[in-house]
Amino acid sequence: MLSRQQLIQQIKQKKSFLCVGLDTDIEKIPVFLKEYPDPLFEFNKRIIDATRDLCIAYKPNAAFYERHGVTGLQSLIKTSEYLPKDCLSIIDAKRGDIGNTSGMYAKTFFDKEAAGMDFDAITVAPYMGNDSVIPFLAFEGKWVIILALTSSVGSKDFQYLETGNGPLYETVIQKANTWAGADRIMYVVGATKSTEFTNIRKYAPDNFLLVPGIGAQGGSLKDVCQYGMTKECGLIVNSSRAIIYASNGEDFAEAARAEALKVQQQMQAELEKAGVI
Amino acid sequence: MLSRQQLIQQIKQKKSFLCVGLDTDIEKIPVFLKEYPDPLFEFNKRIIDATRDLCIAYKPNAAFYERHGVTGLQSLIKTSEYLPKDCLSIIDAKRGDIGNTSGMYAKTFFDKEAAGMDFDAITVAPYMGNDSVIPFLAFEGKWVIILALTSSVGSKDFQYLETGNGPLYETVIQKANTWAGADRIMYVVGATKSTEFTNIRKYAPDNFLLVPGIGAQGGSLKDVCQYGMTKECGLIVNSSRAIIYASNGEDFAEAARAEALKVQQQMQAELEKAGVI
Repeated sequence: MLSRQQLIQQIKQKKSFLCVGLDTDIEKIPVFLKEYPDPLFEFNKRIIDATRDLCIAYKPNAAFYERHGVTGLQSLIKTSEYLPKDCLSIIDAKRGDIGNTSGMYAKTFFDKEAAGMDFDAITVAPYMGNDSVIPFLAFEGKWVIILALTSSVGSKDFQYLETGNGPLYETVIQKANTWAGADRIMYVVGATKSTEFTNIRKYAPDNFLLVPGIGAQGGSLKDVCQYGMTKECGLIVNSSRAIIYASNGEDFAEAARAEALKVQQQMQAELEKAGVI
Repeated sequence: MLSRQQLIQQIKQKKSFLCVGLDTDIEKIPVFLKEYPDPLFEFNKRIIDATRDLCIAYKPNAAFYERHGVTGLQSLIKTSEYLPKDCLSIIDAKRGDIGNTSGMYAKTFFDKEAAGMDFDAITVAPYMGNDSVIPFLAFEGKWVIILALTSSVGSKDFQYLETGNGPLYETVIQKANTWAGADRIMYVVGATKSTEFTNIRKYAPDNFLLVPGIGAQGGSLKDVCQYGMTKECGLIVNSSRAIIYASNGEDFAEAARAEALKVQQQMQAELEKAGVI
């Protein structure tokens, strides 16, 4: 479990605000791993070992594990146990339901006694409002990362709708700010919309923003930092495919490290430029 | 897999549009079941055996199984295999993510080869727009049930926001109607807002509406039918707690049947009144 201060300390120490997305796809991992008893976990373990000093967070995407049923869930549980304690562990699950059901999802991912997992943070969909989010906040010290502005084509359908009080994604942020502070809530903000960061920072000056769209989804790290970085960094930038699938040979972990190192070095430059370190 | 015509036929034949919600909570099921190797499945099996001629759909809520980790998922898989083929099987999972991730969730719940489950329908959150929904529609014959107007307190936070084109929940329906027709898409509409059904029927005259709020959540079946029923019924009304926890003794299944029968009889009267049967 990482508090806001511990997270900021990790960022300063590692000179990085990189989150490695563990979107571990059985179709894309090196073929030789399929001979291991748990290929998804074996892949994750080697990626983690190769990158843990270069990143401050890991984010397994639940769907990539759930699609394998029981064995996939076992891989996810093993991965969650293996994640280093000095990194923020985020389950990208995008859950959201009425209060008592959200409470069950909170147990699933936050309570090791319940389902074997003990993530620090979860992504949550806001459509169903306060009672879909608050049960997650009931777990002391855990983070809730609320979808605000996402990075794919579908974000245009509803998130930009004018609500009389700015676009919907801004209204989501304003409302969610009344549920908890920047020590408990982060927002997902897609990196393909760098100019919108200025706007978002009006309403979320201190919150950490989880930025998913760097790399395969095409966002620019420079733009994100120019418009989104705060004096305490305030950004966690995710990269999944560009790092974890840098090679699909025996050298995949070294290749992932090389990619992560490139990103970390760019991040260090940005942190220095902004005076965070 | 039930097509729209088959669903309507089931409704007419069983004189019911009841969905039994399998929100199977280990804290609430009869204590004696805990001695069985798989208490959640044992409970579901007996509830299904006792109600299958009175309802046209079953809806397990994923969270209640996920919170038990691997054993919970095994209970869910066994339940999905046990669900009668003449009933619509709905997984209440409220998933929603970018395209490739939604594709993984679709495999999880629709492709038996992937995770062991083969549901007919899934509930999906609309916030991330078209690419979060369309991968589910790629599975031929499967239904997508999109959250429009939900029944808990949080629905007031965003779903009623004026978007210049009606409230957000109406905009969701109008947009989603462009993705597929009433033979593939249903909407979740909370039963505590019966008067809004009239409005929703303007934009979704033919779509089936999944109504979750009857019973414990306080909706009125009469109001729902008055404002929401079409000539082909067009409604699937869910009841979870009021039926499955009607008793917590040895007689729980009989008690569930008695409750389901009461609801079925009210539904039959409504179907007759509206001239559906």
